[in-house]
Amino acid sequence: MPKLWNDSIETHRRAVREATIDATAELIAEHGLLSVTMSQIAERAGIGRATLYKYFPDLKSVLDAWHERQITTHLDQLAQARDHASHPDQRLRTVLQTYARITRHPRGHHDSELAALMHRGEHVTRAQQHLHAMIRDLAAEAAQAGEIRDDIAPDELAIYCLHALTAASSLPDEPAVDRLVEITLAGLKPLRRPHP
Amino acid sequence: MPKLWNDSIETHRRAVREATIDATAELIAEHGLLSVTMSQIAERAGIGRATLYKYFPDLKSVLDAWHERQITTHLDQLAQARDHASHPDQRLRTVLQTYARITRHPRGHHDSELAALMHRGEHVTRAQQHLHAMIRDLAAEAAQAGEIRDDIAPDELAIYCLHALTAASSLPDEPAVDRLVEITLAGLKPLRRPHP
Repeated sequence: MPKLWNDSIETHRRAVREATIDATAELIAEHGLLSVTMSQIAERAGIGRATLYKYFPDLKSVLDAWHERQITTHLDQLAQARDHASHPDQRLRTVLQTYARITRHPRGHHDSELAALMHRGEHVTRAQQHLHAMIRDLAAEAAQAGEIRDDIAPDELAIYCLHALTAASSLPDEPAVDRLVEITLAGLKPLRRPHP
Repeated sequence: MPKLWNDSIETHRRAVREATIDATAELIAEHGLLSVTMSQIAERAGIGRATLYKYFPDLKSVLDAWHERQITTHLDQLAQARDHASHPDQRLRTVLQTYARITRHPRGHHDSELAALMHRGEHVTRAQQHLHAMIRDLAAEAAQAGEIRDDIAPDELAIYCLHALTAASSLPDEPAVDRLVEITLAGLKPLRRPHP
């Protein structure tokens, strides 16, 4: 087959996939993760059920694809937040704040049991490693600039930050989340050196 | 039936229950949560399978009883740690440290999937509320003594502490856990007031 034909098949495939995931995201936002069905997804995406099953063998595979895209979106948000700030201290703060807000509003994760199941899987592990590395590097940078303590490995500081910020999911509103970020950052402050 | 007879039946029942849970705890420590069977438990407890099934209808009910006892033991450990310290700052510190160490070594919880399942259920919710209330009260006490910040509700400080300390399960050794407790407490420090 000519290359142009292959490209256009590939483009078409990607479009159907994206439309399916868009439809799934809408349905999850409207009705929650547990009540979405393959028939609803096909209808919302404007494709036949047979076509849908050609792309995704079952509901789990659609949900996985949706979840993977969510995670990618979140990682992109974090990278953007990081790249918009210039000062090391600001970079760490803005990424932690963005992460805490995402943690408080993980769209579609109303059903904690299913959410727990989705939070396994290889793409989640990869994303967690990516996130950990991002925070660790920002912590190392801020420590080098003397803005956070440098007597504890950035690796450990990142583990602390990521766990502390999961508290966001238990908080009632955004000001509380901002206070959580403030407390978490306060934990990283350099120790006051005795005066010479 | 005379009261004495009733008492002795009750004592016997409790002894069989305790022996069963002891046996279960041993088997879990030796082989992990997933490989324990009803036959092994009966054998180790020195009772017949029929007797075991009279007390516990299935494996899940034994594991639940074991887990509930574990939680009670941990809450007792925390209350003891609290009551051994006298100064508000010390009380909060020692309870957080004890909690972090328990979190790092939850005996028997090698199997994360099953652990996730065990961590639902009413007795777990009750224990979490109890734990939250304990940390919240200690935070309130320490805030009143001027040792931690008093501009954020003790409720929120407790949520922060408990989430931050779950990081202990990702840490390699006890010194790292101690550093985590130190960082977490540093997050609570009162803001420095401007000099008059």
